[in-house]
Amino acid sequence: MRSFFDPRQLRHRPVSELHNGGFTAYQETPDRAESVLNAIGPTELPRDCGEGPILAVHDAEYIEFLKSAHALWRDAGRDGDPIPYAWPVIGRRALRLKRIDALLGRFSFDATTPIAEGTWEAAYWNAQTAIAAADAVLGGERAAFALCRPPGHHAGADYFGGYCHLNVAAITAQRARDAGIERVAILDIDYHHGNGTQDIFWERDDVFYASIHADPATDYPFFWGHADETGGGPGEGATLNLPLPQGTRLPAFRAAQAQALDAIRAFDPGLLVVSFGADTFEGDPISHFELATADYRALAADIASAGLPTVVVQEGGYATAALGANVRSFLSGF
Amino acid sequence: MRSFFDPRQLRHRPVSELHNGGFTAYQETPDRAESVLNAIGPTELPRDCGEGPILAVHDAEYIEFLKSAHALWRDAGRDGDPIPYAWPVIGRRALRLKRIDALLGRFSFDATTPIAEGTWEAAYWNAQTAIAAADAVLGGERAAFALCRPPGHHAGADYFGGYCHLNVAAITAQRARDAGIERVAILDIDYHHGNGTQDIFWERDDVFYASIHADPATDYPFFWGHADETGGGPGEGATLNLPLPQGTRLPAFRAAQAQALDAIRAFDPGLLVVSFGADTFEGDPISHFELATADYRALAADIASAGLPTVVVQEGGYATAALGANVRSFLSGF
Repeated sequence: MRSFFDPRQLRHRPVSELHNGGFTAYQETPDRAESVLNAIGPTELPRDCGEGPILAVHDAEYIEFLKSAHALWRDAGRDGDPIPYAWPVIGRRALRLKRIDALLGRFSFDATTPIAEGTWEAAYWNAQTAIAAADAVLGGERAAFALCRPPGHHAGADYFGGYCHLNVAAITAQRARDAGIERVAILDIDYHHGNGTQDIFWERDDVFYASIHADPATDYPFFWGHADETGGGPGEGATLNLPLPQGTRLPAFRAAQAQALDAIRAFDPGLLVVSFGADTFEGDPISHFELATADYRALAADIASAGLPTVVVQEGGYATAALGANVRSFLSGF
Repeated sequence: MRSFFDPRQLRHRPVSELHNGGFTAYQETPDRAESVLNAIGPTELPRDCGEGPILAVHDAEYIEFLKSAHALWRDAGRDGDPIPYAWPVIGRRALRLKRIDALLGRFSFDATTPIAEGTWEAAYWNAQTAIAAADAVLGGERAAFALCRPPGHHAGADYFGGYCHLNVAAITAQRARDAGIERVAILDIDYHHGNGTQDIFWERDDVFYASIHADPATDYPFFWGHADETGGGPGEGATLNLPLPQGTRLPAFRAAQAQALDAIRAFDPGLLVVSFGADTFEGDPISHFELATADYRALAADIASAGLPTVVVQEGGYATAALGANVRSFLSGF
């Protein structure tokens, strides 16, 4: 399978994150990508498609913020990385805010995701990597893999959080739509619900979003991914959430994935985007499912049997040493 | 002037707060109350009016959360104080959330306000102190002072934040309404906008809320307190926001307060609640107005000239050594 990666994606290197009420080392490390690179062999560099495909998904004001946030933080005399601390509870509206802390809260939904000096550059090339994989499949490949790092599915049109800044799955799906594919499906099998992806396509009937994830009553991102969330307006019915309890093993996960694939087949998409997180792995340090390395091959084989042109984008997975083997197992199923 | 305080208010003692991207000592210390006590002389203890007047303003589910949050945090195996880290960006709905982190995000709007072991007890007696001052004025006193600590005006019906857990100004105003006062006005002259008070009365035409504060484009709480926020539904026109730039001195502040008092007089309230913050003081470590100690007496005299029965509740003010003198100056104007 053709795979894509750009080493500039490694330039996102926050120092620490807020975790359980204190600061700890940043979990979503550049080593994650290196673990995958070592396991899957050579990757291709993406070409530079510019900001157009990014702005097809994300608000321009948000993109300007991402580019400038670290510099604004330094201008404010601050050390370390920007971390938000206040959020608009009563909903959002256009406000001319003039302070980095205000902007950080305006454009985020949690306090776990700093914006380091190299974050924008990493996020930009992360998006180009996803676009390159999309273009490979749009050009006739049966499947392609985008080694995305940082992940993307928690980022909304105008917010970051959950280690994510640009939503690579959404950018990939939109790239296919803009290339003339009428209907696109996204299957999200990261341990965590992809709240950003859901929000981006919530009211759209041309992109189907199906997610299998830990029950948000107990697991991040808490406020999205409940089973009764099915889309809004014209998008009603084009969102499918299948939360599973902590401790889930392959049989239950596979059954949920079969249900999602049935719904995706019924939607009859021209292209499938898979948001693949390996944090469903039994050894993951921050998650609570019990999948084994070999299980990923079985899950991928089930997905492949749907017979759809498929772009796989990397999402989470924090058992770094095992991440490469888990990704290789998954890709081998295609 | 009769003044009220309960020493149990001192039991809210968080260890640290998230500030400018790192943890620092908690700014809203018990010493603040002690500075005021030393300056104003003897205070009366409030009687215990129970939870009724608190539940007249705050959601029952939120109150249960406040009582249990610190224990849930300990049950989760955590040290230190509970600090939220994820928030519902797309608005709130009833969710059965089962994790302390989820509940913390559900019931808060920022990450600056830990819930320590004694927080509920302190918040409860803080509210009783405000109720006692309200009852004194409802019983015929011209004015009374509630030495509230922690402050309250950032707390909404179902959220904490900004050092605040229970909204003492709102509880005071509602106490007066429930005693038969048809219209109540709140004048908020803390440095920061009182977003919680505004939210609680946003759609009500029986409580007028006027606030003079630092422009939220540059100052916390950022997402509320802009001049175009005037209330909603039946409450349209019953909210008045007068943001002022950093560096504001007495003449501009006094002119804004005169404008607020004109609007309050036109509303014709039967009782006035003053949310008094001394963080407008020139020596305040986290704020940027330039009022002097003697200025507070002038401001209070202007308020007193409105001739309304008045309850003063203490809000912010973080120049602890000067806080007592500033409060004494203010109260001397009545």
